Amino acid sequence: MDIRAQHRVHGGTLTYAQHQSASTGTAMRYSVFVPPGAGPFAYLIWLSGLTCTEDNFTTKAGAYGAAAQAGVAIVAPDTSPRGEGVADDAAYDLGQGAGFYVDATQAPWASHFKMESYITRDLVAAVESGFPLAPRRSLFGHSMGGHGALTLAMKHPSLFRSVSAFSPIASPTRCAWGEKAFNAYLGADQAAWRGHDAALLIEAGKAAPFDDILVDQGLSDSFLEAQLKPELLEQAAQKAGQKLTLRRHEGYDHSYFFITSFVADHVAFHAARLG
Amino acid sequence: MDIRAQHRVHGGTLTYAQHQSASTGTAMRYSVFVPPGAGPFAYLIWLSGLTCTEDNFTTKAGAYGAAAQAGVAIVAPDTSPRGEGVADDAAYDLGQGAGFYVDATQAPWASHFKMESYITRDLVAAVESGFPLAPRRSLFGHSMGGHGALTLAMKHPSLFRSVSAFSPIASPTRCAWGEKAFNAYLGADQAAWRGHDAALLIEAGKAAPFDDILVDQGLSDSFLEAQLKPELLEQAAQKAGQKLTLRRHEGYDHSYFFITSFVADHVAFHAARLG
Repeated sequence: MDIRAQHRVHGGTLTYAQHQSASTGTAMRYSVFVPPGAGPFAYLIWLSGLTCTEDNFTTKAGAYGAAAQAGVAIVAPDTSPRGEGVADDAAYDLGQGAGFYVDATQAPWASHFKMESYITRDLVAAVESGFPLAPRRSLFGHSMGGHGALTLAMKHPSLFRSVSAFSPIASPTRCAWGEKAFNAYLGADQAAWRGHDAALLIEAGKAAPFDDILVDQGLSDSFLEAQLKPELLEQAAQKAGQKLTLRRHEGYDHSYFFITSFVADHVAFHAARLG
Repeated sequence: MDIRAQHRVHGGTLTYAQHQSASTGTAMRYSVFVPPGAGPFAYLIWLSGLTCTEDNFTTKAGAYGAAAQAGVAIVAPDTSPRGEGVADDAAYDLGQGAGFYVDATQAPWASHFKMESYITRDLVAAVESGFPLAPRRSLFGHSMGGHGALTLAMKHPSLFRSVSAFSPIASPTRCAWGEKAFNAYLGADQAAWRGHDAALLIEAGKAAPFDDILVDQGLSDSFLEAQLKPELLEQAAQKAGQKLTLRRHEGYDHSYFFITSFVADHVAFHAARLG
């Protein structure tokens, strides 16, 4: 692990680090906020949205005051492998910065775009050996990262105790962002897509149950109707009997100004479940 | 006034705006956070540091939760005039992004670099006519903007009810940043510099008194000894009988991670004085 920078914040320590990932075969960057005190601390992993790095949540979410108070750590990884030898696309919604938290099976992406394995194996192992973190973890995220949080928690329930999301891509198989990414990363056969769609996982009974899932969605979010479609998650949860607390917020958009307004609620939601 | 963007945040409204300034002769940008409720609201003006725009505090300080709760608005202007016809320097600490909150008297700066007049006249007039703000104002800022907040409040006590700062340049006539900027903007005659130095203003009895001045300083701030020198402000305040609450914080650096850790204290400090 290579420590790139450290800052004191809200009495805790924020570290920007880089490590070599076996899953992606690249150097991967992340930040870790460790609250004040002795630890080991339960922690949240934040998964960011399209175009983001490990720095967006870290500088803009204003979450560390609530995390310090709750005594939980927060890990924020980058959203994809990066670098010169890594495939990319000129569009913002494919390639570097747009890993979609799946393990790609198609060329040219399959050689490095293994974000599901990266998050659930390499990242978890790295932060738990490098920082005073206990193996008590929860997931949350935004937009593409909301999709990532929901699907990874539903597929790896032994790893994560709770899950929440801001403005998630609720059903990537039924929106342009998801269709484009899954077609590229997973191939044209849509059967392979269904295992990476939160609404479909719940509907098919393939999602691990949680006592509750917290989702916040702004009603002035310009991606709401075409890309995010929280109603599909809501319908699936209702059918399957999965409790979902979906809060719709008048006037809020897709930005970090929305996230910072409600992030303390998410920290408290997870802290209560992490013990 | 030209509205560039608006976001709901913490129940209030954040607006990015641009207006034509008579003082600088340029378009100037700023952000305004207006808390929820009817108003008119008392407000704080945040003055940013070197290289900053109207966006640094706005996205990174995490101050709007505290401001919403206290019912105060926050205005964050850009740190200098900008644009093609505006003089600049290749260095980060002179020219665009480095206005130092003074009215320049020397070529080539004097034509646009009039930040003292801009803040105290044009900005105040624009935000009070364009937003539901009452003429009850306070100043705070960081580094170069901490210097700006202290000196402008001390020189314009009829405009500002209270003042606080993070990591201010406490005595710009006695550090490299200040010497370089004042030499360029105000000329080689150091007599002209003294009216823009918080410590010297207090020492000379030329600073308006305040019931208290709140200053936070990180002890791991890499600019502490060479540029910021809070001890000069402390000594001046002690000599002059000006109450100063100077808090030194172990481990904190010069970044917004320091600011976000204590900004709620500053909002409360001013809210108590704005009534």
